[in-house]
Amino acid sequence: MRFSTFLKDKWIFLLSQTGIILFLALLLNVMKISNAANALVCICVLFITVGALVLEYNQKNGFYRELYRNLGTLEKKYYISSVTEKPGFVEGAILMDVLRQTTKSMNDDIADYRRMNTEYQDYVETWIHEIKIPISCIDLICGNNKGEMASGVKEELSRI
Amino acid sequence: MRFSTFLKDKWIFLLSQTGIILFLALLLNVMKISNAANALVCICVLFITVGALVLEYNQKNGFYRELYRNLGTLEKKYYISSVTEKPGFVEGAILMDVLRQTTKSMNDDIADYRRMNTEYQDYVETWIHEIKIPISCIDLICGNNKGEMASGVKEELSRI
Repeated sequence: MRFSTFLKDKWIFLLSQTGIILFLALLLNVMKISNAANALVCICVLFITVGALVLEYNQKNGFYRELYRNLGTLEKKYYISSVTEKPGFVEGAILMDVLRQTTKSMNDDIADYRRMNTEYQDYVETWIHEIKIPISCIDLICGNNKGEMASGVKEELSRI
Repeated sequence: MRFSTFLKDKWIFLLSQTGIILFLALLLNVMKISNAANALVCICVLFITVGALVLEYNQKNGFYRELYRNLGTLEKKYYISSVTEKPGFVEGAILMDVLRQTTKSMNDDIADYRRMNTEYQDYVETWIHEIKIPISCIDLICGNNKGEMASGVKEELSRI
């Protein structure tokens, strides 16, 4: 999050502070306060406003920078919610909560696919094991018998 | 996002505005401005502050409420980034961008699993098709021959 983007997003806050400062300057002018005192008041208000902005920017930027760094380094980006610490402000917390919910739902789905895969492989392996026995028996029968038929069957068996 | 949570999160803004109002009240008092005028100025500043807060809350709450409603109704929560519109403020946009990146990475992984599953099934089906031919041949050979051996082989074939 660049500071300029952050400022653009803070237009409501900036507008309200500009409104307050203009209103004060006008009011103090109407009240016949000296220009120096007027400027001093406005600068003080401006100072507080800028301080508040910088403080908020630092807090949020720290979290978002870490989040994007993690996102950049992670190969499987959906582990992001496990490696990023929960931030101290509400919108960051909402982000983490939404991320946690979506990645949980995804992990469940991936686990389902993995389970289906394993089950199918187990089934196929059991089946292969079971057809091995009669095939070996046929092989033994052919070994115990001679003749045209036995050699024909043996030839077919060699193709399996 | 409840309004109280939102206010708690805005402590920097609230602190700065309280500072500005207190500073103004003190300054106007020192300048021997009448209490009525002093109160009027403070109330105006307060009014602008509350207005700015309510405006920002409405903008953000609308987005977060929709986001959580979508999250609640979606069965597969990782489609959230497709069904939620991009919000007009930077932190919401960051949230959507992070969500989009994580769900993209997740969808790639799910597609990989699905592909692996399909490839394995295809392989098994091809293999089954190939061993069917010699088994049928053995069956035919047994059908064309009589004797003890043919009936033994036939018995084993029936187990496959």
